[in-house]
Amino acid sequence: MSAITLEREPTLEEYGRMTPRAVRQVMREGRFTLRTTRNVALGHVQCALVVLPKAVAFDFMVFCQRNQRPCPVLDVTDPGDPEPRRIAPGADLRTDSPAYSVYRHGILQGYVPDIVDLWRDDSVAFCIGSNTSCDLALRRAGLQTERNRWVLRTKVETDPAGPFRGPLVVTMRWLTPKEAIIATQLTGRFPFNHGAPIHVGDPAALGCDLEHPMMGDPVPEIPRDVVPVFWACSMTPQTVAEQAGLELMITSAPSKGLISDLESDKMCMP
Amino acid sequence: MSAITLEREPTLEEYGRMTPRAVRQVMREGRFTLRTTRNVALGHVQCALVVLPKAVAFDFMVFCQRNQRPCPVLDVTDPGDPEPRRIAPGADLRTDSPAYSVYRHGILQGYVPDIVDLWRDDSVAFCIGSNTSCDLALRRAGLQTERNRWVLRTKVETDPAGPFRGPLVVTMRWLTPKEAIIATQLTGRFPFNHGAPIHVGDPAALGCDLEHPMMGDPVPEIPRDVVPVFWACSMTPQTVAEQAGLELMITSAPSKGLISDLESDKMCMP
Repeated sequence: MSAITLEREPTLEEYGRMTPRAVRQVMREGRFTLRTTRNVALGHVQCALVVLPKAVAFDFMVFCQRNQRPCPVLDVTDPGDPEPRRIAPGADLRTDSPAYSVYRHGILQGYVPDIVDLWRDDSVAFCIGSNTSCDLALRRAGLQTERNRWVLRTKVETDPAGPFRGPLVVTMRWLTPKEAIIATQLTGRFPFNHGAPIHVGDPAALGCDLEHPMMGDPVPEIPRDVVPVFWACSMTPQTVAEQAGLELMITSAPSKGLISDLESDKMCMP
Repeated sequence: MSAITLEREPTLEEYGRMTPRAVRQVMREGRFTLRTTRNVALGHVQCALVVLPKAVAFDFMVFCQRNQRPCPVLDVTDPGDPEPRRIAPGADLRTDSPAYSVYRHGILQGYVPDIVDLWRDDSVAFCIGSNTSCDLALRRAGLQTERNRWVLRTKVETDPAGPFRGPLVVTMRWLTPKEAIIATQLTGRFPFNHGAPIHVGDPAALGCDLEHPMMGDPVPEIPRDVVPVFWACSMTPQTVAEQAGLELMITSAPSKGLISDLESDKMCMP
């Protein structure tokens, strides 16, 4: 698909089969209009982005080390260089995601389609593995990855570093007991991409905010025949951006990741 | 054993059963005289140390991210704080390893028993997982971990960051084919501690320097019935210290690690 230039925007199914490079080109041209990058260039690792000035980059990297489950760092750019050379050579981080969240003094200013004007000579970008990367493995095992899935704030505090602190964000999936066991084994094969679940069962044990998911409607009552399973989530830097209160901090917009060239199947061990 | 104060130095067998805290106390008092910390406080994660000024700490941390197999970072101290609070609360990094290598302008000045006088207000310490952490798992599976094991420089270049660059260092073990398969599976369970082997077979494929191991005598001719198996090694920062050529860079001395409180069995997924 990569060489084909479509007059119209690709369909979801076409997006699923496109190469990461081709998808990024569509995004760069501002033609990507889907609500989420999930299932796009299926089988490739997607990343949440965090862009910070060099002066606080070390603190943030230590934060990621101390909170490796929600924040597995897959690439760090050299200051001022917008190309994630190791995971997406040729990409431009400023334009190749569909949308970015801009935080000033901890307050979300809104979403922007690119960050060309916000990028500085001392900007450092962190590419953080996202759980969408495991979707293909889960699908192959017969699990659906679309429905009964929420991104929730918890009352679990991350381990702080410098100005970076805030509550852990988790992905909750409702699974059957058999699916829960399969998903635990499969995601455990991706230690550098959130890995195995961090909790199973009662959402209250993590203090999950079921009323206000980070996207979508409140969580309905949990049916008796499902097992809630929880994974650390790469949207955690967004709650951290609120608490850090930096003059400027940029993250990917919710559900709008950077599509890397890394193949999930080869991510078991980088 | 931890509460016992011995008049004499513990024997190797006694060291093996001691708690990490008790062993660190012996080291702090300068009474540890073994050639290696291998098999001390058996079953606990041992770390290689790297101590650097804050000004280059971010570059080094990016180096570790880009070279995660040899340099899995398990803890990073806050600037000026010599306590690795997450992996060895109460420990003092300046005194609780048996010996340290001091590099000035890339040249090894020698080994010192503590770094109290070299520690600065802006010193940052990195604790890097070492393959000794897997020894107990290998022993339980019936493999010996003492003999036929070498630490070798290779011609494989690490992925540089800032001033940090240099050749990869590997641990080579000679194993039977059956042992090689067992060891590959077992060490693969420790993705944050070098993980699975990076190579198996001919040492020439990595450009191993068999004449000059980083410790001990030259490697003898490889017998026909063994399989050489290679793991990335946490002594890599020592070759990096030579090439970085910083005014001052401190590492652990060869085979003299920091004994952390982390239990290897629980390290499969931190």
